[in-house]
Amino acid sequence: MRTSQYILATLKETPSDAEIISHQLMLRAGMIRKLASGLYTWLPSGLKVLRKVEQVVREEMNKAGAIEMLMPVIQPADLWQESGRWEQFGPELLRINDRHNRPFALGPTHEEVITDFVRKEISSYKQLPLTLYQVQTKVRDEVRPRFGVMRAREFTMKDAYSFHLTEECLAQTYQRMHQAYCNIFERLGLDYRPVIADTGSIGGSVSHEFHVLAESGEDAIAFSTESDYAANIEKAEALAPTEARPEPSKELNTFATPEAKTIADLKAQHGVKPHRGVKTLIVYGAPDENEQRGLVALILRGDHELNELKAEKHPLVDSPLEMAKEEDIFAAIGARPGSLGPVGLKMPIIVDRSAAVMADFVAGANKDGEHYSGINWDRDVAEYDVFDLRNVVEGDPSPCGKGTLQIKRGIEVGHIFQLGTKYSEAMNAGVLGENGKNQIMTMGCYGVGVSRIVAAAIEQNNDDYGIKWPTALAPFELAIVPMNMHKSHRIPDIAERLYSEFTAAGIDVLFDDRKERPGVMFNDMELLGVPFTLVIGERNLDNNQVELKNRRTGEKLMLDIDQAVAAITAQIRG
Amino acid sequence: MRTSQYILATLKETPSDAEIISHQLMLRAGMIRKLASGLYTWLPSGLKVLRKVEQVVREEMNKAGAIEMLMPVIQPADLWQESGRWEQFGPELLRINDRHNRPFALGPTHEEVITDFVRKEISSYKQLPLTLYQVQTKVRDEVRPRFGVMRAREFTMKDAYSFHLTEECLAQTYQRMHQAYCNIFERLGLDYRPVIADTGSIGGSVSHEFHVLAESGEDAIAFSTESDYAANIEKAEALAPTEARPEPSKELNTFATPEAKTIADLKAQHGVKPHRGVKTLIVYGAPDENEQRGLVALILRGDHELNELKAEKHPLVDSPLEMAKEEDIFAAIGARPGSLGPVGLKMPIIVDRSAAVMADFVAGANKDGEHYSGINWDRDVAEYDVFDLRNVVEGDPSPCGKGTLQIKRGIEVGHIFQLGTKYSEAMNAGVLGENGKNQIMTMGCYGVGVSRIVAAAIEQNNDDYGIKWPTALAPFELAIVPMNMHKSHRIPDIAERLYSEFTAAGIDVLFDDRKERPGVMFNDMELLGVPFTLVIGERNLDNNQVELKNRRTGEKLMLDIDQAVAAITAQIRG
Repeated sequence: MRTSQYILATLKETPSDAEIISHQLMLRAGMIRKLASGLYTWLPSGLKVLRKVEQVVREEMNKAGAIEMLMPVIQPADLWQESGRWEQFGPELLRINDRHNRPFALGPTHEEVITDFVRKEISSYKQLPLTLYQVQTKVRDEVRPRFGVMRAREFTMKDAYSFHLTEECLAQTYQRMHQAYCNIFERLGLDYRPVIADTGSIGGSVSHEFHVLAESGEDAIAFSTESDYAANIEKAEALAPTEARPEPSKELNTFATPEAKTIADLKAQHGVKPHRGVKTLIVYGAPDENEQRGLVALILRGDHELNELKAEKHPLVDSPLEMAKEEDIFAAIGARPGSLGPVGLKMPIIVDRSAAVMADFVAGANKDGEHYSGINWDRDVAEYDVFDLRNVVEGDPSPCGKGTLQIKRGIEVGHIFQLGTKYSEAMNAGVLGENGKNQIMTMGCYGVGVSRIVAAAIEQNNDDYGIKWPTALAPFELAIVPMNMHKSHRIPDIAERLYSEFTAAGIDVLFDDRKERPGVMFNDMELLGVPFTLVIGERNLDNNQVELKNRRTGEKLMLDIDQAVAAITAQIRG
Repeated sequence: MRTSQYILATLKETPSDAEIISHQLMLRAGMIRKLASGLYTWLPSGLKVLRKVEQVVREEMNKAGAIEMLMPVIQPADLWQESGRWEQFGPELLRINDRHNRPFALGPTHEEVITDFVRKEISSYKQLPLTLYQVQTKVRDEVRPRFGVMRAREFTMKDAYSFHLTEECLAQTYQRMHQAYCNIFERLGLDYRPVIADTGSIGGSVSHEFHVLAESGEDAIAFSTESDYAANIEKAEALAPTEARPEPSKELNTFATPEAKTIADLKAQHGVKPHRGVKTLIVYGAPDENEQRGLVALILRGDHELNELKAEKHPLVDSPLEMAKEEDIFAAIGARPGSLGPVGLKMPIIVDRSAAVMADFVAGANKDGEHYSGINWDRDVAEYDVFDLRNVVEGDPSPCGKGTLQIKRGIEVGHIFQLGTKYSEAMNAGVLGENGKNQIMTMGCYGVGVSRIVAAAIEQNNDDYGIKWPTALAPFELAIVPMNMHKSHRIPDIAERLYSEFTAAGIDVLFDDRKERPGVMFNDMELLGVPFTLVIGERNLDNNQVELKNRRTGEKLMLDIDQAVAAITAQIRG
């Protein structure tokens, strides 16, 4: 491809509305443009990268025995009503009406459609297991689309679905897909981790996310220092401390805290170290004798953070978790948030495992402007339940039993689930089993954020000059930059000759034939992240040489013109 | 691929709701399934064919210098408002609101989005010409989706757009795209024709459609018997008859026609041959002195059909054309449709060229239940305008000047337009010209109905047993059918060996390893239209032979096992 016949669309300035580096670089390198909030046009060089991701994903899916098909973006509402998700899904599910006023949704995922398809097409256990996938445009009407294609409203996803007679069979396919996902990210040249994950709104029991590690990642991942244990922080268990709770050594006392509403205030104004106090969070749950929605107190050590997903798993806590309104708290307790605590509290109390081993600690006195010191469990608070409520923190013991936890940031680019029978049961998707009886199928589902991978790869591979593509993802394999083409015949002649020789050798070359200053051309090629740039200049030609620049390593190499094509082709293909 | 691990999904019965053969065969061969009206899931074998079409289209677009990109399906309303099409487009434009109640449309076409993109990215004439394309999911909310993927609501299209400084440059690119389209349909092995077409709601001046010829086609195409002239019947000019109009030989007389409301009635009840009478159609147009919407009469020979697009081109006729309501006709004329005619009619009269050379003809007397005979132009009707108003019919002289016209049916699978400045002007898309002044760009647009091609190819290539794919489109290149696999070790051993040898040779094989009767397997392979089937049976193995069946020709060939892979690979690749 010649730049003169291409649409390079590079930008010198960083667009002001792009917060993260991948979004900035995708705009600057001319890979994407915003059409509207969360809607992006893929320019030619961006699309080439997207297609490379798609192709690797496809190859690994086929290798894993999955079969490609293609379902519509527009899905009839009745299937979503059947699964129950028409009600459960929030406004991210973009609902539309057709010209006859019939309700449809633009698919963010296809569990309903595929389950409907399989229940109609597959009738016997002999046709199982079956894994189907598609690479397709998905729609999710995000409340706040951001970070470019990282969290867009229209995006490309690979979604696969597997169908089985037994849990064991599902577990086998799940393992094969897990391996296929590792292969995909390996081949793409990304630093990634599979991590234990929550199943969230998709449902099911076992689940792993695949994260590309990057500081800008929205997710925190906990790793063991001594094993390959890794989990989304949402899901990583905070083990109960092994040390016993100290015996009480202080009396229960109140002290006035008129200005202290937070753990930070307590520290600043009263010298209470955060890990010596607890925070008390009031949420809805635990219906009272009249089946009225009641309140529940969650107690955490002052320096720990609530993990909502963990709290939701407690039978007394409503799911989704909802913080109690201040008026409801005041009506029940007679005090406001900032002065709450477990002593004398007339509602179920759930105490985090780490808070449960504290002694002589500080908490609100359930009276505005007053706190207790010297609180001790059992002595001062008779009834409470101990539960894992908090996010793990760096240094916590690893739940796998080996080493301690480290926390890193990651970008979720894949997610696989052992769904079980959530959808097949709701939609009555069964087959004739070996015993001749109808048997509900067991399902798995497996997603890759194809367009998001492009952004995640850039988050992990960039420098001050632009993108540093892993070879498998680069939009072009080689750039040819002739310097001052118009000043001699020799340079354009050799550039043209090399361009056609590389093209004949099957190398995907971007030939910068613009009448631009060399600096402009180099900057564009670096910004776009082409892995190798072949520079053709007068001085080197005097020695019958050309220069090869390696974008990732920065290395420069002089090559004899006659050996350039063979040597560079070998380097690129090797 | 092994059928045991595939989802073949063939059907024995023809689904009752499928009217045309391609729809029936796509369902029966397990290529598609209906999700909802006009929404289809592509099964694995269907998707493979779709992808083959996509790939050929892509290769020819790239060869023609077009550059691939990808725009969103969801488009903001404001761009459509800018072009004026938000108002012009009917309910086929599926309009939606996002969660913030902002209006969007699901794109049936992307003129607005691409024009907006180019006006922002391209600033100088030096960057022109530029041709961009995408292969993408499109949405058109058809009032009556039918014929499966032939007229679906969600479908795959290739749409390309070119941008130019001058009409001449546009004409050159248009010619190159015309050639690329010919290459595409040639490579796909289809019997097709490029035909002169109307520009319709897309706009512009010059336009060609590409039709796959098939009796089930919704369009009629007129061909010259002596040249390569071909036009959509909508667009084919009906030349003025060369013979002079005979002199009047009869008196004007009325006769009672109480029961005759149509040309057919006149023939049956009064012996008036259709070509000796005229029909008078009253439409809206021609405002009167008070700028009120008036009426206009269109006069055609009794055996000819009105061409609405031609009538709309007359300055006195409203566009879109609308037939006058009976009450408006009665108020103006004092008679009802069925008894109308040109004599004494007080409104503009437009006469089709063929009707204008009639003499002594019959028409309504503008009095219910009465007709005139012996009508003659000029003598009996003083003022009238002669215009091309009718569809051509077989035997008409070709507008190219050579031969006469034949009419065939076609399926429109491509449409190219010289748009001119319709969108660029409305959206102010200009570049700096050589003279340093802003200049509005000139545009072309070029569409291929990718998913429709799959159906059109089947309409043209089928028999009683199923689909007969042209080689370029077949979902598999070869089927291996071992007969009675379970009865001996020899058959599965050889089948497995050949399957891996063909696969190693790069042939896309469907290996039917099901425990089915041979007849079931043959029927499925024929239905699916695999071009070659290799049959492995006991008797032939005794002679160390296998049998190759050619789906298109029906030929059978015996091959020595050891030579089978080389011979068949050569035949498929040749």
